[in-house]
Amino acid sequence: MSFDTPLPLASGAVLPFYSLAYETYGRLNDDASNAVLVCHALNASHHVAGRHADGTLGWWDNLIGAGKAIDTERFFVIGVNNPGSCFGSTGPMHRNPATGRAWGADFPVVTVEDWVEAQARLVERLGIRQLAAVIGGSLGGMQALAWTLRHPDRVRHCVAVATAPCLSAQNIAFNEVARRAIVTDPDFHGGHFYEHGVVPQRGLTVARMIGHITYLSDDSMEARFGRALKNGSPAYSTQAIEFQVESYLRHQGEKFSGYFDANTYLLITRALDYFDPAAAAGGSLRKAFEPARGNRFLLVSFTTDWRFAPARSREIVKALVDNGTAVSYAEIDAPHGHDAFLLDDPRYHTVMRGYFEAQVAAHV
Amino acid sequence: MSFDTPLPLASGAVLPFYSLAYETYGRLNDDASNAVLVCHALNASHHVAGRHADGTLGWWDNLIGAGKAIDTERFFVIGVNNPGSCFGSTGPMHRNPATGRAWGADFPVVTVEDWVEAQARLVERLGIRQLAAVIGGSLGGMQALAWTLRHPDRVRHCVAVATAPCLSAQNIAFNEVARRAIVTDPDFHGGHFYEHGVVPQRGLTVARMIGHITYLSDDSMEARFGRALKNGSPAYSTQAIEFQVESYLRHQGEKFSGYFDANTYLLITRALDYFDPAAAAGGSLRKAFEPARGNRFLLVSFTTDWRFAPARSREIVKALVDNGTAVSYAEIDAPHGHDAFLLDDPRYHTVMRGYFEAQVAAHV
Repeated sequence: MSFDTPLPLASGAVLPFYSLAYETYGRLNDDASNAVLVCHALNASHHVAGRHADGTLGWWDNLIGAGKAIDTERFFVIGVNNPGSCFGSTGPMHRNPATGRAWGADFPVVTVEDWVEAQARLVERLGIRQLAAVIGGSLGGMQALAWTLRHPDRVRHCVAVATAPCLSAQNIAFNEVARRAIVTDPDFHGGHFYEHGVVPQRGLTVARMIGHITYLSDDSMEARFGRALKNGSPAYSTQAIEFQVESYLRHQGEKFSGYFDANTYLLITRALDYFDPAAAAGGSLRKAFEPARGNRFLLVSFTTDWRFAPARSREIVKALVDNGTAVSYAEIDAPHGHDAFLLDDPRYHTVMRGYFEAQVAAHV
Repeated sequence: MSFDTPLPLASGAVLPFYSLAYETYGRLNDDASNAVLVCHALNASHHVAGRHADGTLGWWDNLIGAGKAIDTERFFVIGVNNPGSCFGSTGPMHRNPATGRAWGADFPVVTVEDWVEAQARLVERLGIRQLAAVIGGSLGGMQALAWTLRHPDRVRHCVAVATAPCLSAQNIAFNEVARRAIVTDPDFHGGHFYEHGVVPQRGLTVARMIGHITYLSDDSMEARFGRALKNGSPAYSTQAIEFQVESYLRHQGEKFSGYFDANTYLLITRALDYFDPAAAAGGSLRKAFEPARGNRFLLVSFTTDWRFAPARSREIVKALVDNGTAVSYAEIDAPHGHDAFLLDDPRYHTVMRGYFEAQVAAHV
């Protein structure tokens, strides 16, 4: 869907026009009260559920669909790709009207709040005055939270999974290393690699490998790979693959570098870095969440998530409780680290199903 | 000191000859019973204590010196640089006799056990039949442990700080990402960059940044940098430095890339990966430590070290206890993560001083 009204951004820049790729699942009911907006994290898109003609399954298909925890026979689910991403919405690989060439590194820096504004316009266009719920995991959870701060009257429920009220110094550090790997790859060409017919694959591979380590728990890596050697006995080489975990990470990194855009990686990690609603409220997360007093929240975290540990979700829960805001919180004992929010864990999905059936559906 | 007797390596390769850079502090007593060998970790050398003419302080100077926890008025302390390193001992930047050019990536893979053999020859040359103690932190701690497994009669005490009986899958994963960053830097030239007059600085910088994150605790990064911006307000840039933590990491990475050798980085991280004494004993760490029954151990770990967490030291302590081996263990409540082993923490240093004064000095 195309938007010709310029989008003013947090940075002061303006996105002159943009289009958003989106998908919907289920049917919007007569009073448009059953819409659920799904916000994506770093490496995901509007393709949330179902199977495309090319065989690709939606990234949250285990959670969303007919008869699933978020039941598309009851809810009208909207998946949207954010501006700056590389899955169909306006992004750095598209034409910059000011120069006639690809935006590249000149694509304006976008924030979580900018994405919420772009999404709000889409929701309005779809004829939805108030979302039944906005939901997301990780960076998607930040967007869900930001919806309640900017448009508390346009959403009833916020479901934020495996997220944080802001990045820690360590989180930022990991993002920065990934960015340096990309930016210092000679094939990055200052962000204008499109014109050179190359892609900074080396940098993207390293960036993805770093990210991937932080998505998995130490224990799940140990259980899955341990110290198993790829070929049974050591080759005593510094460059050959020796351990299974190396093989897995290289494969993940190389696959990712084949389809993900380097400028998008920079933009999305920066959006993560910048998100910090408490900062705008004098450092008080409780104060930041004052506009959301009338909303209802479900927060979910996972015990072995060390990227956005349960303690980070509890910070948000505390701010909401201190405001007298309705909040449910589930801390799921799951071994899979941050990735758990994408996996089909029965305890996690039972919580989600229960919340959507009992709470979200109550006003639909 | 030069060694012309070839050194057979764990890989099956042979180092035809090598020299070791070393320093000593204090005076070897008449019966040569007061020698303490210090093994270094990734980024360190034989310059353990005191100040060089150029102003550089030994890397463990806060622990070792006249009147310090390891008192050089009482002990004869030996610092040695390992083969494959880049601080004076034979390494990949030196001449490969088989080709006449620098070893580069052809330098043979060396293991913790290979280093112990090289060190053992040095100790012998210095006229020391039995070390009073061998001591090291992190990778240095692994060498100290390996001494007791290979030459239990040639060392009395083993002091292993902030170490592990082997790397976890996550540890290996971080090493592998760092190696990929180096190896895929076009300036690496397959490990023969010396001939091209370049250094893979980009890769080394990223590698060091990754490593550095794992040396610090999440909490200490938070306390030191938090979300502080470098210039007070955000520039909304994906490539400029925004946060203090980015500035710090880039500086550390760039400084490191100016003096550390890329091939050494590969070799030393591989030595870490391969260390696994239990593997050679059918997976039993207890069995692996059977040769060391007559040795005495001090193990020290730090509560916030997530690289080599206290649980990893406790694995070693358990193996020793199960063998009836004399072991003292201190788990120091310190905020600094893995780096704590290099810092001047009074509780930590009190433990070290106590052990050296009461235990190690008893037979000197």
